[in-house]
Amino acid sequence: MEKGKQLYEGKAKRIYATDQDDIVWIEYKNSATAFNGEKKAEIDGKGRLNNLITGLLFQKLAEKGIESHFVKQLSENEQLVKHVTIIPLEVVVRNVAAGSIAKRLGFEEGVRFNEPIVEFYYKDDELGDPLLAEDHIRLLDVAAPEEVQILKKEALRVNEVLIPLFDEMGVDLVDFKIEFGRQKNGSILLADEISPDTCRLWEKGTNRKLDKDLFRRDLGGLTEAYTEIYNRLGGTL
Amino acid sequence: MEKGKQLYEGKAKRIYATDQDDIVWIEYKNSATAFNGEKKAEIDGKGRLNNLITGLLFQKLAEKGIESHFVKQLSENEQLVKHVTIIPLEVVVRNVAAGSIAKRLGFEEGVRFNEPIVEFYYKDDELGDPLLAEDHIRLLDVAAPEEVQILKKEALRVNEVLIPLFDEMGVDLVDFKIEFGRQKNGSILLADEISPDTCRLWEKGTNRKLDKDLFRRDLGGLTEAYTEIYNRLGGTL
Repeated sequence: MEKGKQLYEGKAKRIYATDQDDIVWIEYKNSATAFNGEKKAEIDGKGRLNNLITGLLFQKLAEKGIESHFVKQLSENEQLVKHVTIIPLEVVVRNVAAGSIAKRLGFEEGVRFNEPIVEFYYKDDELGDPLLAEDHIRLLDVAAPEEVQILKKEALRVNEVLIPLFDEMGVDLVDFKIEFGRQKNGSILLADEISPDTCRLWEKGTNRKLDKDLFRRDLGGLTEAYTEIYNRLGGTL
Repeated sequence: MEKGKQLYEGKAKRIYATDQDDIVWIEYKNSATAFNGEKKAEIDGKGRLNNLITGLLFQKLAEKGIESHFVKQLSENEQLVKHVTIIPLEVVVRNVAAGSIAKRLGFEEGVRFNEPIVEFYYKDDELGDPLLAEDHIRLLDVAAPEEVQILKKEALRVNEVLIPLFDEMGVDLVDFKIEFGRQKNGSILLADEISPDTCRLWEKGTNRKLDKDLFRRDLGGLTEAYTEIYNRLGGTL
Protein backbone atom coordinates (compact mmCIF):
# COMPACT_ATOMS: atom_id res chain seq x y z
CA MET A 1 0.00 0.00 0.00
CA GLU A 2 1.40 3.41 -1.05
CA LYS A 3 0.73 6.62 0.87
CA GLY A 4 -0.63 9.21 -1.56
CA LYS A 5 -1.44 12.91 -1.34
CA GLN A 6 -2.98 14.49 1.74
CA LEU A 7 -6.78 14.67 1.40
CA TYR A 8 -7.67 16.42 4.64
CA GLU A 9 -6.21 17.75 7.85
CA GLY A 10 -8.44 17.94 10.91
CA LYS A 11 -7.70 18.96 14.49
CA ALA A 12 -6.45 15.49 15.45
CA LYS A 13 -5.65 13.66 12.20
CA ARG A 14 -4.28 13.90 8.69
CA ILE A 15 -5.85 11.76 5.99
CA TYR A 16 -3.98 10.61 2.90
CA ALA A 17 -5.03 8.82 -0.25
CA THR A 18 -3.56 5.40 -1.03
CA ASP A 19 -3.13 3.56 -4.32
CA GLN A 20 -6.48 1.92 -3.58
CA ASP A 21 -9.57 4.04 -4.19
CA ASP A 22 -11.60 2.71 -1.28
CA ILE A 23 -8.83 2.89 1.34
CA VAL A 24 -7.31 5.94 3.06
CA TRP A 25 -4.31 6.33 5.34
CA ILE A 26 -4.85 8.09 8.67
CA GLU A 27 -2.09 9.71 10.67
CA TYR A 28 -2.98 10.62 14.25
CA LYS A 29 -1.48 13.91 15.42
CA ASN A 30 -0.31 14.86 18.91
CA SER A 31 -2.49 17.99 18.95
CA ALA A 32 -4.94 18.34 21.80
CA THR A 33 -7.78 20.80 21.32
CA ALA A 34 -10.84 21.62 23.41
CA PHE A 35 -13.68 24.14 23.57
CA ASN A 36 -14.06 24.20 19.81
CA GLY A 37 -10.35 24.67 19.24
CA GLU A 38 -9.94 27.60 21.64
CA LYS A 39 -7.62 25.60 23.88
CA LYS A 40 -4.68 23.93 22.12
CA ALA A 41 -1.56 21.99 23.03
CA GLU A 42 0.86 19.43 21.65
CA ILE A 43 1.06 16.36 23.84
CA ASP A 44 3.80 13.86 23.08
CA GLY A 45 2.47 10.37 22.55
CA LYS A 46 -1.20 11.34 22.35
CA GLY A 47 -1.56 10.58 18.64
CA ARG A 48 0.08 7.20 19.10
CA LEU A 49 -2.19 6.28 22.04
CA ASN A 50 -5.40 7.36 20.28
CA ASN A 51 -4.40 5.47 17.16
CA LEU A 52 -3.61 2.29 19.11
CA ILE A 53 -6.70 2.51 21.34
CA THR A 54 -9.00 3.25 18.40
CA GLY A 55 -7.60 0.28 16.50
CA LEU A 56 -8.11 -2.03 19.49
CA LEU A 57 -11.66 -0.81 20.12
CA PHE A 58 -12.69 -1.09 16.46
CA GLN A 59 -11.31 -4.66 16.45
CA LYS A 60 -13.24 -5.53 19.61
CA LEU A 61 -16.41 -4.04 18.11
CA ALA A 62 -15.88 -6.08 14.93
CA GLU A 63 -15.62 -9.25 17.06
CA LYS A 64 -19.09 -8.39 18.40
CA GLY A 65 -20.48 -7.87 14.91
CA ILE A 66 -20.17 -4.08 14.68
CA GLU A 67 -18.33 -3.12 11.54
CA SER A 68 -16.32 0.07 11.25
CA HIS A 69 -14.09 1.76 8.70
CA PHE A 70 -10.98 0.28 10.42
CA VAL A 71 -8.84 -1.93 8.20
CA LYS A 72 -5.48 -2.30 9.98
CA GLN A 73 -2.77 -0.70 12.08
CA LEU A 74 0.14 0.52 10.01
CA SER A 75 2.38 1.92 12.70
CA GLU A 76 2.05 3.37 16.16
CA ASN A 77 0.36 6.51 14.84
CA GLU A 78 -1.05 5.37 11.50
CA GLN A 79 -3.90 3.15 10.41
CA LEU A 80 -5.62 2.20 7.18
CA VAL A 81 -9.38 2.68 7.01
CA LYS A 82 -12.10 2.33 4.41
CA HIS A 83 -12.77 5.53 2.52
CA VAL A 84 -16.08 7.06 3.61
CA THR A 85 -17.69 10.48 3.39
CA ILE A 86 -18.23 11.58 6.96
CA ILE A 87 -21.83 12.50 7.85
CA PRO A 88 -21.49 15.89 9.60
CA LEU A 89 -23.15 14.72 12.81
CA GLU A 90 -21.47 14.01 16.11
CA VAL A 91 -23.48 11.20 17.67
CA VAL A 92 -23.15 11.35 21.46
CA VAL A 93 -24.26 8.56 23.79
CA ARG A 94 -24.50 9.33 27.50
CA ASN A 95 -24.87 6.85 30.35
CA VAL A 96 -23.99 9.23 33.18
CA ALA A 97 -24.48 13.01 33.49
CA ALA A 98 -21.25 14.93 32.80
CA GLY A 99 -20.13 17.92 30.78
CA SER A 100 -22.65 19.89 28.75
CA ILE A 101 -25.77 17.87 29.61
CA ALA A 102 -25.19 18.32 33.35
CA LYS A 103 -24.86 22.08 32.90
CA ARG A 104 -27.63 22.52 30.32
CA LEU A 105 -30.32 20.40 31.96
CA GLY A 106 -29.35 20.80 35.61
CA PHE A 107 -28.14 17.27 36.40
CA GLU A 108 -25.46 16.76 39.00
CA GLU A 109 -22.28 15.29 37.47
CA GLY A 110 -22.18 11.55 38.06
CA VAL A 111 -25.94 10.92 38.06
CA ARG A 112 -26.57 7.70 36.15
CA PHE A 113 -29.42 7.84 33.63
CA ASN A 114 -32.02 5.06 33.62
CA GLU A 115 -31.49 4.61 29.91
CA PRO A 116 -28.70 5.87 27.64
CA ILE A 117 -29.35 9.22 25.95
CA VAL A 118 -28.47 9.78 22.30
CA GLU A 119 -27.77 13.31 21.08
CA PHE A 120 -26.83 14.71 17.70
CA TYR A 121 -24.57 17.70 17.21
CA TYR A 122 -23.91 19.46 13.93
CA LYS A 123 -20.22 19.12 13.02
CA ASP A 124 -19.53 22.76 12.19
CA ASP A 125 -16.61 24.52 13.85
CA GLU A 126 -17.82 27.99 12.92
CA LEU A 127 -21.16 27.37 14.64
CA GLY A 128 -19.49 25.62 17.60
CA ASP A 129 -21.06 22.19 16.89
CA PRO A 130 -24.63 23.07 17.99
CA LEU A 131 -27.03 20.52 19.46
CA LEU A 132 -29.64 19.40 16.94
CA ALA A 133 -33.20 18.26 17.49
CA GLU A 134 -34.90 15.91 15.03
CA ASP A 135 -36.36 18.70 12.87
CA HIS A 136 -33.00 20.50 12.63
CA ILE A 137 -31.38 17.42 11.08
CA ARG A 138 -34.16 17.38 8.49
CA LEU A 139 -33.80 21.13 7.95
CA LEU A 140 -30.04 20.95 7.45
CA ASP A 141 -30.51 17.91 5.22
CA VAL A 142 -27.40 16.19 6.60
CA ALA A 143 -29.07 12.81 6.99
CA ALA A 144 -32.39 11.28 5.99
CA PRO A 145 -34.81 10.44 8.85
CA GLU A 146 -34.22 6.70 8.21
CA GLU A 147 -30.47 7.28 8.43
CA VAL A 148 -30.89 9.13 11.72
CA GLN A 149 -32.69 6.07 13.08
CA ILE A 150 -29.82 3.85 11.89
CA LEU A 151 -27.23 6.14 13.52
CA LYS A 152 -29.15 6.10 16.78
CA LYS A 153 -29.54 2.33 16.77
CA GLU A 154 -25.90 1.75 15.85
CA ALA A 155 -24.71 4.18 18.52
CA LEU A 156 -26.73 2.29 21.14
CA ARG A 157 -25.28 -1.04 19.90
CA VAL A 158 -21.74 0.39 20.23
CA ASN A 159 -22.66 1.46 23.77
CA GLU A 160 -23.92 -2.05 24.58
CA VAL A 161 -20.56 -3.50 23.56
CA LEU A 162 -18.35 -0.83 25.12
CA ILE A 163 -20.04 -0.67 28.55
CA PRO A 164 -19.11 -4.25 29.62
CA LEU A 165 -15.76 -4.02 27.87
CA PHE A 166 -14.75 -0.99 29.97
CA ASP A 167 -16.55 -2.33 33.02
CA GLU A 168 -14.39 -5.47 33.03
CA MET A 169 -11.28 -3.30 33.13
CA GLY A 170 -12.62 -1.25 36.04
CA VAL A 171 -13.71 1.76 34.02
CA ASP A 172 -17.10 3.44 33.77
CA LEU A 173 -18.11 4.53 30.26
CA VAL A 174 -19.73 7.87 31.12
CA ASP A 175 -20.31 9.07 27.56
CA PHE A 176 -18.76 9.01 24.11
CA LYS A 177 -18.95 10.66 20.70
CA ILE A 178 -18.83 8.73 17.46
CA GLU A 179 -19.08 9.65 13.80
CA PHE A 180 -20.34 7.74 10.82
CA GLY A 181 -19.57 7.86 7.13
CA ARG A 182 -21.22 6.82 3.90
CA GLN A 183 -19.49 4.37 1.59
CA LYS A 184 -19.70 4.75 -2.18
CA ASN A 185 -22.72 2.40 -2.25
CA GLY A 186 -24.48 4.66 0.30
CA SER A 187 -24.20 2.22 3.22
CA ILE A 188 -23.40 3.73 6.60
CA LEU A 189 -20.25 2.73 8.46
CA LEU A 190 -18.94 3.62 11.92
CA ALA A 191 -15.87 5.78 11.32
CA ASP A 192 -13.50 8.35 12.88
CA GLU A 193 -12.08 7.26 16.24
CA ILE A 194 -13.03 5.93 19.67
CA SER A 195 -10.42 6.95 22.21
CA PRO A 196 -10.05 8.81 25.52
CA ASP A 197 -10.29 11.95 23.36
CA THR A 198 -13.85 11.05 22.41
CA CYS A 199 -15.07 9.21 25.54
CA ARG A 200 -15.46 10.13 29.19
CA LEU A 201 -13.88 7.27 31.13
CA TRP A 202 -13.96 7.27 34.93
CA GLU A 203 -12.14 4.73 37.07
CA LYS A 204 -14.78 2.75 38.94
CA GLY A 205 -14.86 3.43 42.65
CA THR A 206 -12.66 6.53 42.56
CA ASN A 207 -14.25 8.37 39.59
CA ARG A 208 -10.68 9.32 38.60
CA LYS A 209 -10.84 10.77 35.08
CA LEU A 210 -8.94 8.84 32.40
CA ASP A 211 -9.90 10.96 29.40
CA LYS A 212 -9.64 14.34 27.69
CA ASP A 213 -11.24 16.13 30.66
CA LEU A 214 -7.70 15.97 32.13
CA PHE A 215 -6.73 18.41 29.37
CA ARG A 216 -9.99 20.41 29.35
CA ARG A 217 -9.71 20.99 33.09
CA ASP A 218 -5.91 21.30 33.32
CA LEU A 219 -5.64 18.29 35.59
CA GLY A 220 -2.47 16.95 33.96
CA GLY A 221 -1.37 13.33 33.58
CA LEU A 222 -3.04 12.84 30.21
CA THR A 223 -0.41 10.59 28.63
CA GLU A 224 -0.29 8.41 31.76
CA ALA A 225 -4.10 8.08 31.81
CA TYR A 226 -4.34 7.22 28.09
CA THR A 227 -1.50 4.68 28.56
CA GLU A 228 -3.43 3.16 31.44
CA ILE A 229 -6.53 2.80 29.26
CA TYR A 230 -4.47 1.17 26.52
CA ASN A 231 -2.86 -1.22 28.98
CA ARG A 232 -6.14 -2.12 30.66
CA LEU A 233 -7.52 -2.87 27.19
CA GLY A 234 -4.73 -5.43 26.85
CA GLY A 235 -2.39 -3.36 24.72
CA THR A 236 1.31 -3.21 25.45
CA LEU A 237 3.58 -0.30 24.65
CA MET B 1 -68.00 33.87 38.79
CA GLU B 2 -65.97 34.96 41.85
CA LYS B 3 -62.25 35.76 41.73
CA GLY B 4 -60.49 33.69 44.41
CA LYS B 5 -56.96 33.59 45.79
CA GLN B 6 -53.89 34.05 43.63
CA LEU B 7 -52.51 30.67 42.50
CA TYR B 8 -49.46 31.80 40.55
CA GLU B 9 -47.64 34.85 39.30
CA GLY B 10 -45.50 34.53 36.20
CA LYS B 11 -43.53 37.10 34.23
CA ALA B 12 -46.56 38.22 32.22
CA LYS B 13 -49.65 37.02 34.09
CA ARG B 14 -51.27 36.43 37.45
CA ILE B 15 -53.57 33.45 37.84
CA TYR B 16 -56.40 33.32 40.38
CA ALA B 17 -58.75 30.58 41.49
CA THR B 18 -62.49 31.00 40.93
CA ASP B 19 -65.46 29.45 42.70
CA GLN B 20 -65.39 26.79 40.00
CA ASP B 21 -62.70 24.11 40.34
CA ASP B 22 -62.01 23.71 36.65
CA ILE B 23 -61.85 27.42 35.78
CA VAL B 24 -59.13 29.96 36.58
CA TRP B 25 -59.00 33.73 36.19
CA ILE B 26 -56.02 35.19 34.30
CA GLU B 27 -54.87 38.76 34.66
CA TYR B 28 -52.42 39.94 32.02
CA LYS B 29 -49.67 42.22 33.36
CA ASN B 30 -47.96 45.14 31.62
CA SER B 31 -44.49 43.70 32.31
CA ALA B 32 -42.24 43.12 29.35
CA THR B 33 -39.32 40.75 29.86
CA ALA B 34 -36.74 39.33 27.49
CA PHE B 35 -33.52 37.30 27.55
CA ASN B 36 -34.78 35.07 30.34
CA GLY B 37 -35.92 38.01 32.45
CA GLU B 38 -32.63 39.93 32.23
CA LYS B 39 -34.32 42.80 30.39
CA LYS B 40 -37.44 44.19 32.02
CA ALA B 41 -39.85 47.07 31.57
CA GLU B 42 -43.41 48.09 32.27
CA ILE B 43 -45.27 49.00 29.09
CA ASP B 44 -48.68 50.62 29.48
CA GLY B 45 -51.38 48.78 27.61
CA LYS B 46 -49.31 45.66 26.85
CA GLY B 47 -51.27 43.37 29.18
CA ARG B 48 -54.53 44.57 27.73
CA LEU B 49 -53.40 44.04 24.13
CA ASN B 50 -52.02 40.55 24.77
CA ASN B 51 -55.18 39.57 26.61
CA LEU B 52 -57.42 40.84 23.81
CA ILE B 53 -55.29 39.38 21.00
CA THR B 54 -54.96 36.00 22.76
CA GLY B 55 -58.72 35.85 23.26
CA LEU B 56 -59.37 36.68 19.60
CA LEU B 57 -56.82 34.12 18.35
CA PHE B 58 -58.10 31.35 20.61
CA GLN B 59 -61.62 32.07 19.35
CA LYS B 60 -60.47 31.93 15.74
CA LEU B 61 -58.64 28.64 16.41
CA ALA B 62 -61.80 27.21 18.03
CA GLU B 63 -63.77 28.13 14.89
CA LYS B 64 -61.29 25.96 12.96
CA GLY B 65 -61.68 23.05 15.36
CA ILE B 66 -58.66 23.68 17.58
CA GLU B 67 -59.70 23.78 21.20
CA SER B 68 -57.81 25.75 23.82
CA HIS B 69 -58.15 26.56 27.50
CA PHE B 70 -59.84 29.90 26.63
CA VAL B 71 -63.35 30.31 28.05
CA LYS B 72 -64.17 34.02 27.78
CA GLN B 73 -62.95 37.59 28.04
CA LEU B 74 -63.76 39.18 31.37
CA SER B 75 -62.32 42.64 30.88
CA GLU B 76 -59.64 44.30 28.81
CA ASN B 77 -56.86 42.57 30.77
CA GLU B 78 -58.61 39.53 32.22
CA GLN B 79 -59.92 36.27 30.81
CA LEU B 80 -61.37 33.04 32.17
CA VAL B 81 -59.69 29.82 31.10
CA LYS B 82 -60.00 26.13 31.87
CA HIS B 83 -57.75 25.01 34.69
CA VAL B 84 -54.86 22.94 33.34
CA THR B 85 -51.45 21.89 34.63
CA ILE B 86 -48.97 23.40 32.24
CA ILE B 87 -46.55 20.91 30.62
CA PRO B 88 -43.12 22.52 31.11
CA LEU B 89 -42.30 22.59 27.40
CA GLU B 90 -42.23 25.61 25.13
CA VAL B 91 -43.30 24.35 21.74
CA VAL B 92 -41.84 26.57 19.02
CA VAL B 93 -42.94 26.46 15.38
CA ARG B 94 -40.76 28.22 12.83
CA ASN B 95 -41.68 29.07 9.23
CA VAL B 96 -38.87 31.54 8.59
CA ALA B 97 -35.36 31.77 10.10
CA ALA B 98 -35.13 34.40 12.84
CA GLY B 99 -33.76 34.70 16.35
CA SER B 100 -31.94 31.78 17.94
CA ILE B 101 -32.24 29.31 15.06
CA ALA B 102 -30.63 31.76 12.63
CA LYS B 103 -27.71 32.30 14.99
CA ARG B 104 -27.32 28.68 16.15
CA LEU B 105 -27.55 26.96 12.77
CA GLY B 106 -26.17 29.69 10.54
CA PHE B 107 -29.30 30.67 8.60
CA GLU B 108 -29.70 34.21 7.36
CA GLU B 109 -32.67 35.94 9.04
CA GLY B 110 -35.67 35.84 6.73
CA VAL B 111 -34.86 32.58 4.95
CA ARG B 112 -38.11 30.65 4.54
CA PHE B 113 -37.95 26.97 5.47
CA ASN B 114 -39.39 24.39 3.05
CA GLU B 115 -41.38 22.90 5.88
CA PRO B 116 -42.17 24.28 9.35
CA ILE B 117 -39.73 23.30 12.09
CA VAL B 118 -40.97 22.27 15.54
CA GLU B 119 -38.68 22.70 18.54
CA PHE B 120 -39.11 21.95 22.21
CA TYR B 121 -37.56 24.01 24.98
CA TYR B 122 -37.55 23.12 28.66
CA LYS B 123 -39.51 25.76 30.61
CA ASP B 124 -36.97 26.40 33.36
CA ASP B 125 -35.89 29.95 34.12
CA GLU B 126 -32.83 28.88 36.12
CA LEU B 127 -31.52 26.85 33.19
CA GLY B 128 -32.47 29.52 30.65
CA ASP B 129 -35.10 27.40 28.86
CA PRO B 130 -32.67 25.04 27.09
CA LEU B 131 -33.42 23.41 23.73
CA LEU B 132 -34.41 19.77 24.10
CA ALA B 133 -33.91 16.87 21.74
CA GLU B 134 -36.24 13.88 21.78
CA ASP B 135 -34.18 11.89 24.30
CA HIS B 136 -33.94 14.86 26.69
CA ILE B 137 -37.73 15.05 26.94
CA ARG B 138 -37.77 11.36 27.86
CA LEU B 139 -34.91 11.87 30.32
CA LEU B 140 -36.61 14.81 32.05
CA ASP B 141 -39.87 12.88 32.03
CA VAL B 142 -41.91 16.00 31.29
CA ALA B 143 -44.06 14.35 28.64
CA ALA B 144 -44.54 10.82 27.35
CA PRO B 145 -43.30 10.11 23.80
CA GLU B 146 -46.94 9.80 22.60
CA GLU B 147 -47.70 13.19 24.18
CA VAL B 148 -44.72 14.74 22.42
CA GLN B 149 -46.15 13.51 19.13
CA ILE B 150 -49.53 15.06 20.03
CA LEU B 151 -47.87 18.39 20.93
CA LYS B 152 -45.98 18.41 17.65
CA LYS B 153 -49.06 17.59 15.60
CA GLU B 154 -51.20 20.15 17.42
CA ALA B 155 -48.51 22.83 17.05
CA LEU B 156 -48.43 22.22 13.29
CA ARG B 157 -52.24 22.39 13.13
CA VAL B 158 -52.16 25.74 14.94
CA ASN B 159 -49.57 26.90 12.41
CA GLU B 160 -51.80 25.79 9.52
CA VAL B 161 -54.63 27.96 10.86
CA LEU B 162 -52.53 30.97 11.88
CA ILE B 163 -50.49 31.30 8.68
CA PRO B 164 -53.46 32.17 6.38
CA LEU B 165 -55.13 34.19 9.14
CA PHE B 166 -52.11 36.49 9.46
CA ASP B 167 -51.44 36.33 5.74
CA GLU B 168 -54.88 37.79 4.97
CA MET B 169 -54.09 40.74 7.19
CA GLY B 170 -50.76 41.35 5.46
CA VAL B 171 -48.58 39.79 8.13
CA ASP B 172 -46.04 36.98 7.88
CA LEU B 173 -46.09 34.47 10.74
CA VAL B 174 -42.33 33.95 11.14
CA ASP B 175 -42.48 31.79 14.26
CA PHE B 176 -44.40 31.36 17.50
CA LYS B 177 -44.23 29.67 20.88
CA ILE B 178 -47.16 27.87 22.45
CA GLU B 179 -47.68 25.90 25.63
CA PHE B 180 -50.00 23.07 26.48
CA GLY B 181 -51.59 21.86 29.68
CA ARG B 182 -53.12 18.68 31.00
CA GLN B 183 -56.71 18.67 32.20
CA LYS B 184 -57.74 16.60 35.22
CA ASN B 185 -58.68 13.70 32.94
CA GLY B 186 -55.17 13.81 31.43
CA SER B 187 -56.23 15.21 28.06
CA ILE B 188 -53.94 17.80 26.52
CA LEU B 189 -55.20 21.30 25.79
CA LEU B 190 -53.60 24.29 24.08
CA ALA B 191 -53.06 26.88 26.83
CA ASP B 192 -51.13 30.02 27.85
CA GLU B 193 -51.29 32.80 25.25
CA ILE B 194 -50.77 33.58 21.58
CA SER B 195 -49.84 37.21 21.12
CA PRO B 196 -47.13 39.45 19.67
CA ASP B 197 -45.20 38.55 22.84
CA THR B 198 -45.05 34.91 21.72
CA CYS B 199 -44.99 35.25 17.91
CA ARG B 200 -42.68 36.88 15.42
CA LEU B 201 -44.92 38.87 13.09
CA TRP B 202 -43.45 40.71 10.13
CA GLU B 203 -45.44 43.04 7.91
CA LYS B 204 -45.48 41.49 4.44
CA GLY B 205 -43.43 43.40 1.88
CA THR B 206 -41.63 45.63 4.38
CA ASN B 207 -40.62 42.99 7.00
CA ARG B 208 -41.45 45.64 9.62
CA LYS B 209 -41.53 43.91 13.00
CA LEU B 210 -44.85 43.90 14.82
CA ASP B 211 -43.85 41.82 17.84
CA LYS B 212 -41.72 41.61 20.97
CA ASP B 213 -38.50 41.99 18.98
CA LEU B 214 -39.34 45.72 19.13
CA PHE B 215 -38.66 45.45 22.87
CA ARG B 216 -35.77 42.92 22.65
CA ARG B 217 -33.98 45.14 20.14
CA ASP B 218 -34.97 48.52 21.61
CA LEU B 219 -36.76 49.53 18.42
CA GLY B 220 -39.68 51.21 20.23
CA GLY B 221 -43.29 51.50 19.13
CA LEU B 222 -44.40 48.29 20.83
CA THR B 223 -47.85 49.45 21.92
CA GLU B 224 -48.55 50.86 18.46
CA ALA B 225 -47.46 47.61 16.78
CA TYR B 226 -49.53 45.41 19.10
CA THR B 227 -52.52 47.73 18.56
CA GLU B 228 -52.02 47.38 14.82
CA ILE B 229 -52.06 43.59 15.12
CA TYR B 230 -55.23 43.75 17.19
CA ASN B 231 -56.91 46.06 14.73
CA ARG B 232 -55.84 44.01 11.70
CA LEU B 233 -57.34 40.96 13.45
CA GLY B 234 -60.65 42.85 13.49
CA GLY B 235 -60.52 44.02 17.10
CA THR B 236 -61.45 47.56 18.03
CA LEU B 237 -60.08 49.46 21.01
